[in-house]
Amino acid sequence: MNIREKSAELLDRVRNKSPLIHHITNYVTVNDCANIVLAIGASPVMADEIDEVQDMVSIANTLVLNMGTPNKRTVESMLAAGRRANALGIPVVFDPVGVGATEYRTKIAHKILDEVEISVLSGNISEIKAISGLGGTTKGVDASSEDTTDLNYMEDSSNMAKTISKQLNCIIAITGAVDVITDGDKVFYVHNGHEMLSTITGTGCMCTSLIGSFCGVTDDYLNAATAGIMAMGIAGEKAYKSLVQGEVGSGSFKARLLDMVFILTGEDLTKEGKVYGI
Amino acid sequence: MNIREKSAELLDRVRNKSPLIHHITNYVTVNDCANIVLAIGASPVMADEIDEVQDMVSIANTLVLNMGTPNKRTVESMLAAGRRANALGIPVVFDPVGVGATEYRTKIAHKILDEVEISVLSGNISEIKAISGLGGTTKGVDASSEDTTDLNYMEDSSNMAKTISKQLNCIIAITGAVDVITDGDKVFYVHNGHEMLSTITGTGCMCTSLIGSFCGVTDDYLNAATAGIMAMGIAGEKAYKSLVQGEVGSGSFKARLLDMVFILTGEDLTKEGKVYGI
Amino acid sequence: MNIREKSAELLDRVRNKSPLIHHITNYVTVNDCANIVLAIGASPVMADEIDEVQDMVSIANTLVLNMGTPNKRTVESMLAAGRRANALGIPVVFDPVGVGATEYRTKIAHKILDEVEISVLSGNISEIKAISGLGGTTKGVDASSEDTTDLNYMEDSSNMAKTISKQLNCIIAITGAVDVITDGDKVFYVHNGHEMLSTITGTGCMCTSLIGSFCGVTDDYLNAATAGIMAMGIAGEKAYKSLVQGEVGSGSFKARLLDMVFILTGEDLTKEGKVYGI
Repeated sequence: MNIREKSAELLDRVRNKSPLIHHITNYVTVNDCANIVLAIGASPVMADEIDEVQDMVSIANTLVLNMGTPNKRTVESMLAAGRRANALGIPVVFDPVGVGATEYRTKIAHKILDEVEISVLSGNISEIKAISGLGGTTKGVDASSEDTTDLNYMEDSSNMAKTISKQLNCIIAITGAVDVITDGDKVFYVHNGHEMLSTITGTGCMCTSLIGSFCGVTDDYLNAATAGIMAMGIAGEKAYKSLVQGEVGSGSFKARLLDMVFILTGEDLTKEGKVYGI
Repeated sequence: MNIREKSAELLDRVRNKSPLIHHITNYVTVNDCANIVLAIGASPVMADEIDEVQDMVSIANTLVLNMGTPNKRTVESMLAAGRRANALGIPVVFDPVGVGATEYRTKIAHKILDEVEISVLSGNISEIKAISGLGGTTKGVDASSEDTTDLNYMEDSSNMAKTISKQLNCIIAITGAVDVITDGDKVFYVHNGHEMLSTITGTGCMCTSLIGSFCGVTDDYLNAATAGIMAMGIAGEKAYKSLVQGEVGSGSFKARLLDMVFILTGEDLTKEGKVYGI
Repeated sequence: MNIREKSAELLDRVRNKSPLIHHITNYVTVNDCANIVLAIGASPVMADEIDEVQDMVSIANTLVLNMGTPNKRTVESMLAAGRRANALGIPVVFDPVGVGATEYRTKIAHKILDEVEISVLSGNISEIKAISGLGGTTKGVDASSEDTTDLNYMEDSSNMAKTISKQLNCIIAITGAVDVITDGDKVFYVHNGHEMLSTITGTGCMCTSLIGSFCGVTDDYLNAATAGIMAMGIAGEKAYKSLVQGEVGSGSFKARLLDMVFILTGEDLTKEGKVYGI
């Protein structure tokens, strides 16, 4: 099977098994993350009190750590839950939202990477550059245009991703106009998506939650990350096409995006997936 | 008047009086809870700082406690607000989200039940079983399928609900495919609802907020709980029917659900309410 | 240029410059605030950990402080970020949500006003009255009807607004059926808007975020506040008009509101703006 077919099979598994995805995440996009996890067929639970995160992650199939609005309390919970997930062999997906924007975010991202073994590190190009120490120019939580307009973008980002993947021993997923996913050797490029995805907050977070949903049903995290990114991109394309008269902006698009994840099929992934591997 | 007619009258009262519903709730579904309270005609306020919750609840008509994302800080605020509500005779509606999933949730649910007199305890079957000590198999925050597929579900759940109702001296509202509401003697079964309601996060929380809205205009909390559950179920049915071409999933359904609560009438409750009492 | 034309020009600048708007805000409406900031063409970032807010605000173009769900931790962050913004000459927009409802909110609103120089103070009539010490009758977070039905509403509120504006040395923006914006001398009245805006939570917060977006591209904060309020009002009108069959309530309206901010043009502001100045 090729990566599209394997992703379609993973989607079936998500819908059959409904893996429980424990999130410790931000309060901006948390509702959208819960709803997209339900839409893909998995089951979300959000819990961040340190007295319960170890118990909660123990019954989960994936732990998603998203540092969109970090604070001292929730970072401690992320570390405790992450270590427990490691001990139990539960995959950990980490989205270092806004890393590089402040010293605090950079410090806690590295603390999490030092103390928790990550299965998939997912972020935009500025965030992954900041993690790598290459000095991404994060502007708040969005990728800087300086980081995406370079002509050698794809080659540079895949080389960087491979290097970081080997350093951190995890899958790297860089989301952008072209998404780059690698396990350090194999690289997949996903050309799906629509520019409307950048007009609503949380598409990065939601994509990470989809990756987490797929990680809950396989230990092939390269496939899981690629499937999550393809699902998001294809749903974005279909959401745009589904807009009818009067549905002209980001509010309608957001509702339709959830609709399209909800009705996404394996055939969508095999037929619409624009994924190229090297 | 029968329960449908009495619920219709309560809806009129909610729209005329616009009761203030003070929530101490989770950060996942809080926006949806605020919007559904507005849609039914009541007025939401969310406040969880311990230095203000006693003042805030004092001007409220109902206190809603929802432990979807509990932490030490907000649990203390729940206890303080709950005690003040009791002292002032303000109804307290409690949704023990995810109780049974972790020891922490079980402990704090019991602490709240020990220290605060609850008017309505509202949850899914797994949560109510966990409260009762019957060992519900909560999977995260959703009801376990093991708890809902038993052939004797309705008889078992109504017997359990009656027992807990007498123990805790409060209305028990079990939400599910068939909802069960009891004051320990009288039992109402509500057959309204639509399976799409389980595809978005927070329908349980929103239902609890609707119950809270009705509790703000009556001291017949059995009626209030039944009215809230009927309102949610009927709005869910109408939301599904209202979907037009292209509106194929949970994103569109969620917007329409709010629409249908917004235009819900007393006639909807009397004509569409599928409530049976014993 | 008149105020409509100047507002249209500001909108162009927002879309070209995409200013970064750092919010320290509540967890009820935070997602809507982020999405409306994106829809108008600016870039939102939410961050409230005291160890990072000073760094974050340093790269921002505006700081928005919204006390919808305040607590001790976030209030300290608001003060620290506000002082840093002042030191760097970055505008601070403050929405004292629910001030007057509890002693705590009144105390922290005054603490913020004492320690931080505010560029625009934005709230409903009950909130601004409470700030002024005139004893607004805030009911939770919504304006009290007692505060809005007076026949002399417009004259009284503009006089009060001018007085407070001079006391606090900032722009005062009172949102309501008629919005009043003043720098202490000049007063603008905005007659745009639609009653559906009061049926969803967070329109006040979103309006404040739009004001913040405009403040990020000019130092004429009177114009910025007027532009933000006009944008919200006109988008509300257009959202209502755009509803099609079956879109009958607050859920659909909310999605369309975001759509209409997304496609708002300078021509909308110049042609649809109902702003009168004295």
